[in-house]
Amino acid sequence: MSSHESQLHLGVFLRGVGHHLASWRSPLVTSGSEISFTHYRHLARTAERGKFDMVFLGDSVCVRERPEGVKREILQRLGHLVHFEPLTLLSALSTATTHVGLVGTASTTYNEPYHVARKFASLDHISDGRAGWNVVTSTSLAEANNFNREEHLGHAERYVRANEFVDVVVGLWDSWDDDAFVADKAEGIYFDEDKVFEINHRGAHFNVKGPLNLSRPPQGHPVIVQAGSSDAGKDLAARTAEVVFTAQRTLKEGQAFYRSLKDRMSKYGRAPDELKIMPGVFTVVGRTQEEADDKYGHLQELVDPKVGVAMLSRTTGIDLSAYPLDAPLPRFGGNNVQQARPELIDALAEREHLTIWQTILAIAGARGHHVLIGTPERIADELEERFKGEAADGFNLMPPYLPGGLEDFVDLVVPELQRRGLFRTEYQGSTLRDHLGLARPANVNKVRADARAQA
Amino acid sequence: MSSHESQLHLGVFLRGVGHHLASWRSPLVTSGSEISFTHYRHLARTAERGKFDMVFLGDSVCVRERPEGVKREILQRLGHLVHFEPLTLLSALSTATTHVGLVGTASTTYNEPYHVARKFASLDHISDGRAGWNVVTSTSLAEANNFNREEHLGHAERYVRANEFVDVVVGLWDSWDDDAFVADKAEGIYFDEDKVFEINHRGAHFNVKGPLNLSRPPQGHPVIVQAGSSDAGKDLAARTAEVVFTAQRTLKEGQAFYRSLKDRMSKYGRAPDELKIMPGVFTVVGRTQEEADDKYGHLQELVDPKVGVAMLSRTTGIDLSAYPLDAPLPRFGGNNVQQARPELIDALAEREHLTIWQTILAIAGARGHHVLIGTPERIADELEERFKGEAADGFNLMPPYLPGGLEDFVDLVVPELQRRGLFRTEYQGSTLRDHLGLARPANVNKVRADARAQA
Repeated sequence: MSSHESQLHLGVFLRGVGHHLASWRSPLVTSGSEISFTHYRHLARTAERGKFDMVFLGDSVCVRERPEGVKREILQRLGHLVHFEPLTLLSALSTATTHVGLVGTASTTYNEPYHVARKFASLDHISDGRAGWNVVTSTSLAEANNFNREEHLGHAERYVRANEFVDVVVGLWDSWDDDAFVADKAEGIYFDEDKVFEINHRGAHFNVKGPLNLSRPPQGHPVIVQAGSSDAGKDLAARTAEVVFTAQRTLKEGQAFYRSLKDRMSKYGRAPDELKIMPGVFTVVGRTQEEADDKYGHLQELVDPKVGVAMLSRTTGIDLSAYPLDAPLPRFGGNNVQQARPELIDALAEREHLTIWQTILAIAGARGHHVLIGTPERIADELEERFKGEAADGFNLMPPYLPGGLEDFVDLVVPELQRRGLFRTEYQGSTLRDHLGLARPANVNKVRADARAQA
Repeated sequence: MSSHESQLHLGVFLRGVGHHLASWRSPLVTSGSEISFTHYRHLARTAERGKFDMVFLGDSVCVRERPEGVKREILQRLGHLVHFEPLTLLSALSTATTHVGLVGTASTTYNEPYHVARKFASLDHISDGRAGWNVVTSTSLAEANNFNREEHLGHAERYVRANEFVDVVVGLWDSWDDDAFVADKAEGIYFDEDKVFEINHRGAHFNVKGPLNLSRPPQGHPVIVQAGSSDAGKDLAARTAEVVFTAQRTLKEGQAFYRSLKDRMSKYGRAPDELKIMPGVFTVVGRTQEEADDKYGHLQELVDPKVGVAMLSRTTGIDLSAYPLDAPLPRFGGNNVQQARPELIDALAEREHLTIWQTILAIAGARGHHVLIGTPERIADELEERFKGEAADGFNLMPPYLPGGLEDFVDLVVPELQRRGLFRTEYQGSTLRDHLGLARPANVNKVRADARAQA
């Protein structure tokens, strides 16, 4: 019995000049466009032309990919070091688009809920209901060191804080009833005092009184997105998320994750279709298989072995620079920082008997996500299989290089999905919730106040 | 000997439907436009049509004007309770304009410098060099209560923190040299490792390592704006500010403040023209004096006495609801929250022998700022006198109602200023620094590194 809809959902993870490790070296990308608003505007408009549900921006509060202890000569070979702050960029993009959802990442570790609630509520108002918040925790020493701390928070504490953080933000979004502002000019009554709620939250990490200084967002709550795949991450998602991004390479892994997360929702009183699972998918599209393989091959040739070793050392937690490239990847299990992704890589290397260099090439594009290289038909086949096989409610596209990789998908794969009836040909609504088929939530503070009044 | 230029500068303080206390009740404004992006876009474009240097957004991290201990029936009569988060709004406005500067407020009290540095750097990139940061400290209990605190920080501690905060932000903006990103695709060198600077700041309030995850802003540093008029505020401004907003009702007060602040700069090694002083000015423009008086009179008639008493009680720190409206305003001196503004009101009420109701009406529009009600010629005369008399380098316009009050100024007063040669007829440059005649600053980290290398 399927819990999902007849059509799949699509997001695109916008990341500078692309997701492939060496994308910045490709002649297909324009240097400097990682800090070009024009570049991002073109990407957002291309996604909207393709009728995507949303564009998505990752984030970290430090220079990305600047692992500690890496030598100067390697550091300067890493791309993707700088990026726009997500909320400012999404607000600017909102004026250049009319329908596509705008999802940005904000960490619960080094932020305050009042600031985060405001920013996403403000974006939701500016964009007429297209905002989404990707809830993450911060895991790197480099981030801790930018916020007065000598070390990053442990996994368990991060998730306790994240759970409390989300509750405070949701409460703040519901500070006002939808119709609180009556603005009766003749009587001089600006708002109805029965329709404002202080949240008076007192918890382990936060004391927040409220109310928020912004009226209720058009969507009620901006859509809540998450990507954690650890046990604590899945619990947070099952309780609060409406979209989950995840890395699942095989159909079976995808199905197991999908079932496990959807099953977990009932204990929080939620139905399976209140959460959409959208695995990342790294696609290289060609009109023929050979064309696709060639495009991918060109990118792989640009991978700098020194950079690959540094990146894989960071992911595995092992200094691999002491090993020859053709040695088998040492088994390492997970690590204590990001719990989910490294395990996938460990399993992959073992299953396919990969050397260090082969592992580097295997993850240089998709960093552990599902890789699809081929014709529009072949890519559509695979996506259809995952969607119909209940491994996914949709996909978060990770183009290898930008804008070309996104344009290829929109021009070639989207029409194929539309021909199969698997994807919309026009937007039916105007908000991100409309696209995702998610209901507008009730005001949690009003529900509580009404319950107290009844009692 | 004049330290200033031949032409004055103009900003406009955008505040929902206007600065007058009762503006929301006027038939001239549209209810709900305080949370309408379309409204703000029209305002920004109108300012740009008028060749303004900048638009300006205030901020607080609580519901504005919600004084503690005020009764429900009065609370709901206060307007201006909700507003956009400034950085998201300014980013969206940047795409709808091409020249006008975009200045937003962010408090140093409940923020982290890494977040603030990023947001303004990001806005500066998105807008191609039009960002400005208005540095404030947070003074209300309502703000403290939204950020885990039972009481707000004392005046002295707030300014110690603000000084350190500004230094960290400036250091982070200079994390990279202007030409750090070489992006040599063939050699695989993304940036020059000699052109990145960790700041490694360790201070009383902040430990921040850096570097910022964003390349150096187009302006080097977004323009730093301040409004504090206390002694500690003036010192912070003399040391770090490039624009100062202030409230000065009389020419003499304005000249004294102007001299005092400019004189203070030399001890920080700065020249007087590195800082532009722009007092707030509340204008009601009519084609005749009678028309202007009528416009103002209509607004004054809409002032709700209960609201006025609540507002004046908050400003004075005295509960005035126990006094008759026609009693003289009790002397109160300053207060321990905002140090400068209440003293102005105290002095005004004493000088002009005002009752409580007269004081309410006197500050209902401009909250202690300079009030100008008249024809374009009369308003231009007064502005010219203040400008030429070295009481101001320019003015921050506070329109009584919006958009009408701004449109009147742009259509009627700006042409008069232009006829007199006192204001630009076209933009000469493209960045906010260009408009203000401020130099692009050197990279502070590079200057220090070069000095160390020389030694």
